[in-house]
Amino acid sequence: MRDAYYEQLDTIVDDLVQLTGTVRKAVAASTAALLNADAPLAEQVIDGDKQIDETTEEIEERALLLLATQQPVATDLRQLVATLRMLTDLQRMGDLSVHVAKVARLRMPDVAVPVSIQPTIMAMASVADQMIHAASRIVANRDVDAASRLEDTDDEMDRLRKDLFRALLGGTWEHGIEPAIDLALLGRYYERIGDHAVSMARRVVYLVTGEIAPGA
Amino acid sequence: MRDAYYEQLDTIVDDLVQLTGTVRKAVAASTAALLNADAPLAEQVIDGDKQIDETTEEIEERALLLLATQQPVATDLRQLVATLRMLTDLQRMGDLSVHVAKVARLRMPDVAVPVSIQPTIMAMASVADQMIHAASRIVANRDVDAASRLEDTDDEMDRLRKDLFRALLGGTWEHGIEPAIDLALLGRYYERIGDHAVSMARRVVYLVTGEIAPGA
Repeated sequence: MRDAYYEQLDTIVDDLVQLTGTVRKAVAASTAALLNADAPLAEQVIDGDKQIDETTEEIEERALLLLATQQPVATDLRQLVATLRMLTDLQRMGDLSVHVAKVARLRMPDVAVPVSIQPTIMAMASVADQMIHAASRIVANRDVDAASRLEDTDDEMDRLRKDLFRALLGGTWEHGIEPAIDLALLGRYYERIGDHAVSMARRVVYLVTGEIAPGA
Repeated sequence: MRDAYYEQLDTIVDDLVQLTGTVRKAVAASTAALLNADAPLAEQVIDGDKQIDETTEEIEERALLLLATQQPVATDLRQLVATLRMLTDLQRMGDLSVHVAKVARLRMPDVAVPVSIQPTIMAMASVADQMIHAASRIVANRDVDAASRLEDTDDEMDRLRKDLFRALLGGTWEHGIEPAIDLALLGRYYERIGDHAVSMARRVVYLVTGEIAPGA
């Protein structure tokens, strides 16, 4: 009975890790759609979110079934509850990639991001990508040290967001209100994607050490 | 044993409803701080969020303990899992009220919102307030009909957000980039507060009817 339980739990965690990979690809694709004004790619991200939602719900159902039938306690229980939480994080990250793709779509055939700001957006997207990848490995390997490094990467995201706002508000902005608003919201979307990666990592730290990280 | 279970579950749901009231007050206070450039009130919202986080964690711990010790199945299990999800919604709504208060604080002693836009922000805040109140009653009374009315209120929030963007982008905007960015983000914060209220309501619908609402 216990063996069957751990087997099913392992499958659930494997699927969670795989879903993290899918979400990571969606975020990368939304950035590519944004920076290249690539309409088919933007549509692919927007349509693909249904699949992320369905997979999330499917894993969630299995986790609930395992909870109901095997009635785990202590760490095993916390593992399943953490899994449910991480599924919510992943679903939100998928939604945020859709928001990025929709900003891209709204401004087509133009590129929503002015050339001078593209390096900053690329850097934010790259940090988000690293953070999702790190979260995936942290979940797969219960790697608490990597979780602490992820917090440092999040500081880099904060720094980039400040750079972005300095560019928008520094007085030399010449692209008008619309791109400024797009960029403020895009900055927020990437920042939130990073926050959800941090939240996943903190759930793992809590599982392993029993300590709640501040803000987790 | 079962009686004790339902007694504890009822207390948890009562506390969740009460926490919803606390979050509702925090959102209202953040709006008042924003529209009146009220520094002490903004600080109160920012500091008060710690209390919301602590209460969330405390209820969460009790829900997990009940899960572990009483090992509920079927609807009882779903009720507890839904409670955990709703706690995450409430915690996020608290965070969003802090974001509103921080925008207010950043522009003090000025009011961050230009006079011409204040009615729209007031209307968004009022819709958010109604939505949180509705969510609270839906959770307390398992009122599925009210949940469907809440979706209509959410349409009103969407309409207001479009009004806001029309004002920012309509070509007659004369307040510059900074307030435009503040307002785009504020619009997003109120919209997300509404989304979390809808998410809470959908969790209740799922509990009662067993059907997942689209996007829940």
